[in-house]
Amino acid sequence: MTHEKWLQQTITMAVENVRNGGGPFAAIIVKNDKIIGKGTNLVHLHNDPSAHAELLAIREACSTLASVDLSDCVLYASGEPCPMCLGAAYWATVGNIYYACSKTDALLEADFTNPLTHFFNDQDEVPENRSVPFIQMKTQDNLAPFHEWNKIQNTN
Amino acid sequence: MTHEKWLQQTITMAVENVRNGGGPFAAIIVKNDKIIGKGTNLVHLHNDPSAHAELLAIREACSTLASVDLSDCVLYASGEPCPMCLGAAYWATVGNIYYACSKTDALLEADFTNPLTHFFNDQDEVPENRSVPFIQMKTQDNLAPFHEWNKIQNTN
Repeated sequence: MTHEKWLQQTITMAVENVRNGGGPFAAIIVKNDKIIGKGTNLVHLHNDPSAHAELLAIREACSTLASVDLSDCVLYASGEPCPMCLGAAYWATVGNIYYACSKTDALLEADFTNPLTHFFNDQDEVPENRSVPFIQMKTQDNLAPFHEWNKIQNTN
Repeated sequence: MTHEKWLQQTITMAVENVRNGGGPFAAIIVKNDKIIGKGTNLVHLHNDPSAHAELLAIREACSTLASVDLSDCVLYASGEPCPMCLGAAYWATVGNIYYACSKTDALLEADFTNPLTHFFNDQDEVPENRSVPFIQMKTQDNLAPFHEWNKIQNTN
């Protein structure tokens, strides 16, 4: 019941966001029954491809807690998080993720095309042949940042 | 030769970033032989799990161009972009990605453990059983944001 209440809130926020010129997505981060981070899709309003609801909610929650650890928190999202946002949730070790509408629901039931469909299919391609080609080119000292990192870790 | 020059610059930036208290990663976005966005890993300095070098460089480049389309641009990264940053690159339709050091190089040759290893393995798990469980819970009006979106698109 609680989960539904929070998800319902993200739906209301997402509808409102569309009316304000944003995208049809919203998310909140809840800890101990309190919202500590909120976000709505502001990609086009802010010219920021990373301004997805979930990512903004995660950033706000981490700022609120002054920590990158959200393991005691739950992420609620109106729509199924994309791979970028899922990645951010992993980096923040979010406790759980609940979402109301899958990308398939959005496509089949509301004719909303996810422009990232090719991203998912792309994962099976050789990196160099992906729609965003992904190429490693080793440089002579490509390990230097890690060696510097290890040096500093070992002196702390 | 040009690719190597830019990658070399990310390595230098990454080493400098570690000396300044950041993580061992840097990235730049180049368009027409000019840098239009830069980033270094500031996750712990900013308490922001999304503050990866690549994501910050993409955000800055989009802000510079006032656009979310980076298809004429190349992303250069000192280390192999993680799934979150790869997602951001797809959303921005970055033209090409070049990186200098793979996550395997960093692990095997510099003993740098990527804390997201379980993320990659997790993709084969049932979503509910992942280390960050990923659960759909449909609400009554979970399609409302998309209906609102379609309504506004159709009146424009």
